[in-house]
Amino acid sequence: MQKILSAAISVLMFSLAYTQPKVQLNDKLVLVIHGGAGTILKSQMTPEKETAYTMALDKALHLGYDTLQKGGSSLDAVEVAIRYMEDSPLFNAGKGAVFTHEGKNELDAAIMNGKDLAAGSVAGVTIIKNPVTAARAVMEKSNHVMMVSKGAEAFAASQGLDIVDPSYFYTERAWQNLQKAKEADSLKMVNNKKMPGAFNQPQNFDQKYGTVGAVALDRYGNLAAATSTGGISNKKFGRVGDSPLIGAGTYANNSTCAISCTGAGEYFIRLVMAKSVSDLMEFKHYSVDAAAREMIMKRLPALGGDGGLIALDKKGNISMPFNTAGMYRGYIKNGTSAVIKIYKD
Amino acid sequence: MQKILSAAISVLMFSLAYTQPKVQLNDKLVLVIHGGAGTILKSQMTPEKETAYTMALDKALHLGYDTLQKGGSSLDAVEVAIRYMEDSPLFNAGKGAVFTHEGKNELDAAIMNGKDLAAGSVAGVTIIKNPVTAARAVMEKSNHVMMVSKGAEAFAASQGLDIVDPSYFYTERAWQNLQKAKEADSLKMVNNKKMPGAFNQPQNFDQKYGTVGAVALDRYGNLAAATSTGGISNKKFGRVGDSPLIGAGTYANNSTCAISCTGAGEYFIRLVMAKSVSDLMEFKHYSVDAAAREMIMKRLPALGGDGGLIALDKKGNISMPFNTAGMYRGYIKNGTSAVIKIYKD
Repeated sequence: MQKILSAAISVLMFSLAYTQPKVQLNDKLVLVIHGGAGTILKSQMTPEKETAYTMALDKALHLGYDTLQKGGSSLDAVEVAIRYMEDSPLFNAGKGAVFTHEGKNELDAAIMNGKDLAAGSVAGVTIIKNPVTAARAVMEKSNHVMMVSKGAEAFAASQGLDIVDPSYFYTERAWQNLQKAKEADSLKMVNNKKMPGAFNQPQNFDQKYGTVGAVALDRYGNLAAATSTGGISNKKFGRVGDSPLIGAGTYANNSTCAISCTGAGEYFIRLVMAKSVSDLMEFKHYSVDAAAREMIMKRLPALGGDGGLIALDKKGNISMPFNTAGMYRGYIKNGTSAVIKIYKD
Repeated sequence: MQKILSAAISVLMFSLAYTQPKVQLNDKLVLVIHGGAGTILKSQMTPEKETAYTMALDKALHLGYDTLQKGGSSLDAVEVAIRYMEDSPLFNAGKGAVFTHEGKNELDAAIMNGKDLAAGSVAGVTIIKNPVTAARAVMEKSNHVMMVSKGAEAFAASQGLDIVDPSYFYTERAWQNLQKAKEADSLKMVNNKKMPGAFNQPQNFDQKYGTVGAVALDRYGNLAAATSTGGISNKKFGRVGDSPLIGAGTYANNSTCAISCTGAGEYFIRLVMAKSVSDLMEFKHYSVDAAAREMIMKRLPALGGDGGLIALDKKGNISMPFNTAGMYRGYIKNGTSAVIKIYKD
């Protein structure tokens, strides 16, 4: 009798141990997104523009969260949410990407799986409709993590991804932005005898980093992160920012957090921003919010940079710090309605 | 009188405070270099080959160390040492770079200044004779950190750097290596029905990562790091490895260490290798050797990767761990004669 009882207890305990993590994490579905940080002031915003951004963020959130609810992975959710923002002309990613100095659109994106640290990214691509999907293909269908320029485009084509004519990325908003940036640039050169130093703020007329990003926690307890961007308006010489660099603009690790950044990319690269947040959690036992705030509110401005990030830990805790006037951001957590914000709280 | 004495003491203390750091650090000049890690077995090495590599490493060390002794910065020293290795046909960087699948040479390099976290990098460049110098120009002469492909080449040309015909990078050794890699690749496809998984070891016939790197400590107490590579033989689709990614293959920070990596780049990117070593020091107070060994001997093989790194802290402590059969490496510390090693100690 004792033996049978003992065996029964063993089976019960095994079952509990085996199923508990799944049950425990099942009700913690979280999706967080951003649509860029920068000088977003309520005084300069029209009600129409505010509504358009709010509706687009809401749609991206619901598409991604629905994916999680239907049993999709966190990778699926961040990809779906970002594809929607890439297809929108409102954000500086995909369709709405800013123009380079030469009048082209060069796109960057990255994705990372917190479960096994798998990662993929593309940079400097000009004909891939959805760079985030190309980044995922690099991660899942190649031996590599990062591909750039024509090589990345050839790979995306070989995988059957949507290829578009470069003119697809034309938007009047981004084109006018380039003209203003060029004008400001030439005025600056006339007025300023001093040569631009190595770490002057990259020239960006509307002072907004419209990069998009998403982080998610799925029912299997796995974190994922992804980021997509058109870079900075009027950029030259094949400049690549932090977005497609694993550990800088994008990072995910189940043992710490998932992160997507937006801001003056050069500073985020030099700080290796996303990995620093993760390491403050892993090595110094900071909470996700303390780690994210340490980097964005202290170390980033100390170096002279600005921007923000979204971060999500394995327990579903969210942090969304930024040191700019505003950051397009939002989340859905555990089935409650979407929270969407633009300005400071 | 008291006033004069007080003023004299102030001047004396100011002088001491101002000059002390310089004097204190003057005797700690260190240069460490590597010429790649991999399957370097004494049984497969000819005496001629061993001598050739040893002499090249010795020359690079002396050129870099002389720079430090003449009052040059750590940035100058790592650039000089790497330029020599880039110009040598022995290493997979610059002149000796391996070929891509398409029979081209696509080069990557990065440099970082530990004093102010300034950084520069280029990736996927095909006509720049010394990519490390292009990386330094990106750092010092542009607002950006990373430039890729044609844009990076246009920038290097605009800065008056040495531009060469792509045929400059032809070496018989690298060409034969590509033929063998392609042969092995096609044999693999015939023999192996399973599609290559996302994280199979990148195909590299001679199983050697000939990337070159250098880290230095100068008389001003500043650390610097730089890395240059031709990537992996038979690489496809504009693949970029860890070398040009700040925080992955290259990193320097006066408050922790300077690092240059060599190995299976995809794993180094996913681990954000160099920043992880630095963060173990900063956040967990590991020594440079404990931090480097934690990453190279534990976390790298745990993920399935191989390779090594060189690391140098602000006190002149050196670590050179690798989990492959060998790593071309060496250092000169405080004016003593050069130490050069190829195999395990």
